[in-house]
Amino acid sequence: MAQNARLQGLGLLVLYILLNPVMTTAQEPALNLLPLPASAQSGTGSLGVDSSFSVAFTGHSEPRLERAGDRFLRQLARQTGLPLALKPGKTARATLVIQTDHASKEIQELGEDESYVLEVTTTGAKLTAPTPLGAMHGLQTFLQLVDVSLGGFAAPALTIQDKPRFPWRGLMIDSARHFIPLDVIRRNIDAMEAVKMNVFHWHLSENQGFRVESRKFPKLHEMGSDGLYYTQEEMRDVITYARDRGIRVVPEFDMPGHSTAWFVGHPELASGKGPYEIERKWGIFDPAMDPTNEKVYKFLDELIGEMAKVFPDHYFHIGGDEVNGKEWDANPKIQAFMKAHGIKNNEALQAYFSGRVQKLVTKHGKTVVGWDEVLVAGVPKDIVIQSWRGQASLAQAAKQGYRGILSNGYYLDLGWSAARHYAVDPLSGDAANLSAEEKQRILGGESCMWAEYVSPENVDSRIWPRNAAIAERLWSPQEVRDPASMYARLEFIGARLEWLGLAHRSVSRNMLQRLAGSSSPVEFAALRTLADVIEPVKDYTRGQTAPAEPSSATPMNRVVDAVPLESDAGRRFSDLVDQFLAVACHDPAAEARLRAQLMTWRDNDAILQPLAQRSFLVKEVAATSQDLAALGTAGLAALDAIAKGQPAPDSWKAQQFAILEQVKKPKAQLLLIPAPAVQKLIEAAAAGGGCSTPKP
Amino acid sequence: MAQNARLQGLGLLVLYILLNPVMTTAQEPALNLLPLPASAQSGTGSLGVDSSFSVAFTGHSEPRLERAGDRFLRQLARQTGLPLALKPGKTARATLVIQTDHASKEIQELGEDESYVLEVTTTGAKLTAPTPLGAMHGLQTFLQLVDVSLGGFAAPALTIQDKPRFPWRGLMIDSARHFIPLDVIRRNIDAMEAVKMNVFHWHLSENQGFRVESRKFPKLHEMGSDGLYYTQEEMRDVITYARDRGIRVVPEFDMPGHSTAWFVGHPELASGKGPYEIERKWGIFDPAMDPTNEKVYKFLDELIGEMAKVFPDHYFHIGGDEVNGKEWDANPKIQAFMKAHGIKNNEALQAYFSGRVQKLVTKHGKTVVGWDEVLVAGVPKDIVIQSWRGQASLAQAAKQGYRGILSNGYYLDLGWSAARHYAVDPLSGDAANLSAEEKQRILGGESCMWAEYVSPENVDSRIWPRNAAIAERLWSPQEVRDPASMYARLEFIGARLEWLGLAHRSVSRNMLQRLAGSSSPVEFAALRTLADVIEPVKDYTRGQTAPAEPSSATPMNRVVDAVPLESDAGRRFSDLVDQFLAVACHDPAAEARLRAQLMTWRDNDAILQPLAQRSFLVKEVAATSQDLAALGTAGLAALDAIAKGQPAPDSWKAQQFAILEQVKKPKAQLLLIPAPAVQKLIEAAAAGGGCSTPKP
Repeated sequence: MAQNARLQGLGLLVLYILLNPVMTTAQEPALNLLPLPASAQSGTGSLGVDSSFSVAFTGHSEPRLERAGDRFLRQLARQTGLPLALKPGKTARATLVIQTDHASKEIQELGEDESYVLEVTTTGAKLTAPTPLGAMHGLQTFLQLVDVSLGGFAAPALTIQDKPRFPWRGLMIDSARHFIPLDVIRRNIDAMEAVKMNVFHWHLSENQGFRVESRKFPKLHEMGSDGLYYTQEEMRDVITYARDRGIRVVPEFDMPGHSTAWFVGHPELASGKGPYEIERKWGIFDPAMDPTNEKVYKFLDELIGEMAKVFPDHYFHIGGDEVNGKEWDANPKIQAFMKAHGIKNNEALQAYFSGRVQKLVTKHGKTVVGWDEVLVAGVPKDIVIQSWRGQASLAQAAKQGYRGILSNGYYLDLGWSAARHYAVDPLSGDAANLSAEEKQRILGGESCMWAEYVSPENVDSRIWPRNAAIAERLWSPQEVRDPASMYARLEFIGARLEWLGLAHRSVSRNMLQRLAGSSSPVEFAALRTLADVIEPVKDYTRGQTAPAEPSSATPMNRVVDAVPLESDAGRRFSDLVDQFLAVACHDPAAEARLRAQLMTWRDNDAILQPLAQRSFLVKEVAATSQDLAALGTAGLAALDAIAKGQPAPDSWKAQQFAILEQVKKPKAQLLLIPAPAVQKLIEAAAAGGGCSTPKP
Repeated sequence: MAQNARLQGLGLLVLYILLNPVMTTAQEPALNLLPLPASAQSGTGSLGVDSSFSVAFTGHSEPRLERAGDRFLRQLARQTGLPLALKPGKTARATLVIQTDHASKEIQELGEDESYVLEVTTTGAKLTAPTPLGAMHGLQTFLQLVDVSLGGFAAPALTIQDKPRFPWRGLMIDSARHFIPLDVIRRNIDAMEAVKMNVFHWHLSENQGFRVESRKFPKLHEMGSDGLYYTQEEMRDVITYARDRGIRVVPEFDMPGHSTAWFVGHPELASGKGPYEIERKWGIFDPAMDPTNEKVYKFLDELIGEMAKVFPDHYFHIGGDEVNGKEWDANPKIQAFMKAHGIKNNEALQAYFSGRVQKLVTKHGKTVVGWDEVLVAGVPKDIVIQSWRGQASLAQAAKQGYRGILSNGYYLDLGWSAARHYAVDPLSGDAANLSAEEKQRILGGESCMWAEYVSPENVDSRIWPRNAAIAERLWSPQEVRDPASMYARLEFIGARLEWLGLAHRSVSRNMLQRLAGSSSPVEFAALRTLADVIEPVKDYTRGQTAPAEPSSATPMNRVVDAVPLESDAGRRFSDLVDQFLAVACHDPAAEARLRAQLMTWRDNDAILQPLAQRSFLVKEVAATSQDLAALGTAGLAALDAIAKGQPAPDSWKAQQFAILEQVKKPKAQLLLIPAPAVQKLIEAAAAGGGCSTPKP
C-alpha cells in the first residue's frame, strides 16, 4: 500500500525528474558575479535597464575606452534583447557614467592598477577607475549584474570596490599541437575579459608545428606548419584585440626541446643529423637545438629580434621544458664541447643554453619567462618562473629572489573538476610560509590548455567553464573558496559566455548529434543521458590507454571528445546522495529523486543499444551504457535495502562491490561518474548505521 | 490492481517519456535526402568515408568548381569530424570524381540545366553534370547521403538521376523592415544551397528603410536607413557568394508605395507634401511616388541604371504592391493629370506608373518582376508576375501569356506548419487545368520572409527548417507529397543545417535562457517544456493583437520571439493521439505515453510559476502555463473516461469543452498546440464509440 501510494504520487515527482535528473543542492549565491569582487555592499532596490539605457565616459578619454563602451552596449543588447542605442556619449546624465582618471601604460605592464569602484543606485550607476583597465573590469561586472526581474531587466543597487589579488592572471593556449584558428582565439580572449584574466600566453611552437610567420626565416612556418600558421598581421590584430580587453599577450617559443618543427626547414639548428619531419605523435621527443653551435645563437638573436617587434609585451617566454638529452648524448661534437667547457651534464648544458638565450632576450628589451627548468644557478633575478612543478618550487624560487607564476594544478587538459582547480592556491603549501616580501614575488598563475586532445571544434569546452574557477582564484580574495557558491555562479557564467559566442555548451550537443547520425529523437536523448554522466579519463591516462597510437591525424569525433570534462549531472547526483545520507536516509523527497534517476539509468541502455548497433562511434560506449544500467540497478537495490532498515547481508555487499569494480574500470577512455556515489549508497545499505532507525 | 500494475511498469515507460515526451509516428524514409531526387535506384552496400576520402574534378574546370570542392570537403570534415585533406585534385582515382561537361552562363540564367547523375558504389562515387550548377547540386546530395554507420561514416550505394521540377525556386528575405546583417544573409544562402534553391530575392527598400548604398543619390541610404544599409561592395560580395552556390540574386526596389524611406532624403519624389520620416510602425502607409512627375522617372532612370550595374541578374523586381492611393487622392496636381490624360482611377494610375518604370528597367537591360498588381492591360509579355494572390491569379496570367511564380501559400512569416506550405503546389487549383504550354509559364515559386516580427537574432528560426519543405515542393516531382516522410527528413536536414552555422535550433534555447535569467536548471527545463508546445499566433494576428502598437523599436525578446513557429512536440503528440484513436483506444503503449506526457504538462506549472514571479518575460506566459496544466488534467480525465469503456456523461463533456474553450484562446500572442488533440480525446471519451469495446 505504501508502495502504491508512493507510485501514485509519482506525477509531480516524475516531472521533477524529467526536468532535472539530479537537483542541485548548491546554495543560491547572493551575487551572480564571477569572479567575486574584493568587497560589495548591498543597497536597496535596483536600477532598471531598458531601451533608454545609456552610457557615457567622463575624465580620461581614449579610443580603446570608446570601443569598450561600444562592446559593452552590444553585449548588453545581446544579453537582454533590448534595442539599445549603440554609441556611448559624453554626458554625465547617462544611466551608467564611467569616470576614468588617467591613461594606463602604452604597453600594458605587469602590476598596473586594475581597480575600480562601481556604485549602482535605483537612479543610475557610476563606475570610477584610475585607469581604463579598471574601467573595463567594472563594465564586465556591470554586465554580470544585469539580470531579468519581475519589473524588467535590472541591476541590483550596491557598491563594489574591487581589485585583483594577483597581477598575473593568465590562460595559456597551445596553438601548436593542434592549430587553433583566429576566431577561436578571439572568442576565448572575450571570455578571458569576462572573468578578468589579463594574460594570454600563446604557445606558438612545438615539435608538431611552428605556427608563426617569420619573415627572416620563412622556412620555419613554410615547412614547419602544414600551412597552419598565423601571419604577423594576424598576430598584431590579436594583440590589439587583447589590449582592447586589458589583456597582455606573452608569446612562447619553446626551446631547446619541443622544437622538431623548427628543424624541418632548419636542420642546422638541431643536435642530430636530420633530416627532420614535423612530429605527428604526442610525447617527449629527442630533437633539441645544439647549445654548442654559435650559429644557433645567431639565428635565435635574429628570430627573437623579429618576434620582439611583433609582440610588444615586456615578457618573452622561451619554454625550456622537457629536454630528454638523447641527441646531445649521441653527438660527439657536443660531448667534446661539454668536456672542453667543464659542463658536467645535460642539465648544465641546458642552463648554459638558457643563459645565452636569456641574454638575447634581454638584448631585445624583454624579460624572460620560462618553465621551472630555466631556473639554474646564476640566472639573473629578473626572470619569471612558470611552475609546472608546484608551490614548493615557486616558494624556493621566491626565497632566492625570483618571481614566479603557478601553473601546477591549473592544467586544463588533465580533466580535473572545477572544484579541484579552485582549491589550488598559489600561496598555499610551502608558499604559505614565505615572508610578505617573498610572497610579493608570487605574481599569480596561469591555466594551461595543452592541445594533444583538443581540436578547434571542442577547445572552448575544454577551457570553459572550468577556467572561470581559476580566474576567480587569481582575482578574488583568498577567503573566497566555497565550491558550492562557485559552482552556482559557474552555471550562471557558463550561460553568459554563450552570449559571447563561446561554443563550450553547444558543441557537445552538436558533436553527439554527429556521432548519433540520423537517430530518432528518443535514441539521441538516451545518448545524452549517458553522455551527461561520463567524463574523459583524467591526467595522462588518455594517451596511455589509447587504442591506437594517437597523433595529430587522429579524428577527434568520439564520445570522449564530445562530452564535457566535468559532468554537472554527476556532481548533482553525488550531492543528492550526500544530502540523503547526511540525514540518515530520512529524506523521502531526496530518496524519490534518487530512485527516479536510478530508474532512468537502469532503463536507458535498452534504448541506446539499437543506436550503438548502427553507429561505430556510439558502439564505443555500448559497454559504458550497460555499466550505467548496472549502476542504476545496484543503486535501486541499495535504496531498497536501506528502506528495510536492516544492514544488508555481506554476500549482497560483495556482489554489489563486484559490480562496482567492473563499472569503475574506464572504457573507451571514459569514466562513469556516479559510481562512487552509488558505492556510498551500497555501503550505507550494508552498514545499516544511520539508516537503521525506523522512518518517522 | 491493474492500476497498480501499470504504475509498477512505469520504470521503462517513464524513461521513454523522459527522453521524448511524444514519440514520432513518422515513417523512416528510405533516403535521408531533402529535396528528394527525381529518381533513385538503390544499390548494394555502401561507400566508406574516412580520412583518405578524396575528391577530383574532371572535364570542364573553373575556379567556382574548385571553391565548391573546397567547401564540400570542409563541410564533409565538419559533419564527420574527420581530418580530410582539404584540396580537391584532378585525378580520376579520387573517391568522388566529378565530371562537369561545360560552363554554365556567365550570368546565371533562368532555366539553365541544373541536372546531375550521382552513382555511388562500394568502391567510389561518380558525379556527372552538364554544368557546374548540376555538379554543385550533386555535391549537396552526396553530403546528405553521408551518415554514420556501424562500419564508419558511409554513403549508401545507389544511382540518382536528378533535375528540378521548376526553374525558379526562391527565398525572399525582407532586409528592409528589420535590417539583416551580412553574415546572416550569407548563412541563409548556404542553407538555400543545401536544399537546392536557386533564387535569392532581396527585398531592399521599404517604408522602414532604404538598405542599399546609392552613389548617385546618397541621401537615399544616408537619410533612409539609420545607418543600416549594404554598401555596393558588400552586395557584390553577396552576389558572388550566391553565384558560387548556383543562386541568382534578384533585387527588389518596391515602388510606388512602400517607399516612405526614400522620401526622407528625397521628398520631391512623393505625392504628399512631406517632410517625411523613416516609418517605425508596421502596416500599409499613405506615402507613394508621384506618377505624374517627370522628375520621378528621371530619378528612377538613374537609380535603376545604377542598380542594374550592381545586380547582374537579368531580372529586376519593382514591387508594385499595396498602394492605398490616399496621397494621390489628396494631391490636386495628380488629380488634374489623371483628368487630363483620361486616367480613370488609382489602379489605372499605378498601371501608368508601372508601364513607365517597366520601360526604364527594359532600357537598362533587365526584365521586370512585380507583384500581382503590376499585371494590367498592355504590359509587355516578358514580365514575371510574383503572386501573393494565388494559383488562380497565376493561371489567369499564364492564359494571357505571362510567366509567374507563386508566393501565396509560401509566406513564412504567417507561421504556418511545414505541412501546410508543403501542400501548396504552384500547379494546383486553377493552374492544374492549364495547357502544357501555359503550365510552362509557371516558373516555380518563392517563399517570403517578411520581417515585421523577425530580428537578425531569430530570423534563421523563422525561415528554417520549414523553408526546406517549400524547397522540396519546388524541386521534387509533384508526386512527392507525403508529409510524414517530409517531417522525418526535415528533422534530419534541420540537424544538418546547424553544421552550416544556421542558428534556427540553438537560438531558441539561448533566447529562452535570456528570459529565464539566472533560473535553476529545473525551472529552465519547465520553461522549455512549455515552450515546446506553444506557437506564435498565425497569419496577421500578432500585429492585430499586439499589447502596444509594435514598431521597429519594439524589443524582440519575448517568448513569442523565442519559440519556433512550429512545435515538433505538439505535432508528435497529435500523431500519437491519432494513433491511439485509430485502433479504437486499444493501444496500451500509446496510452501509457499519452498519460506520461499529460502528467508532465499537468505538473509543469507548479515548477514554472516561481520563475514567472521573478521574470517579467516569463510572467507573460504564466496563464499559458496554467492552461497547459489544465490541458494535462483534462486529457488525463479523458483517458480515465475512455478506460471505463462507457460514453462519458454530457455534463462532463460540457465541462471539459469549457476548459478547452479557455485554453484555445491565444494568450501573450501564443497558441497552445496540443489543445485540438486533447479535444479529440475528450470527444472520444464522450462518444464511447470505438473505445466502448472492452479491452482484450
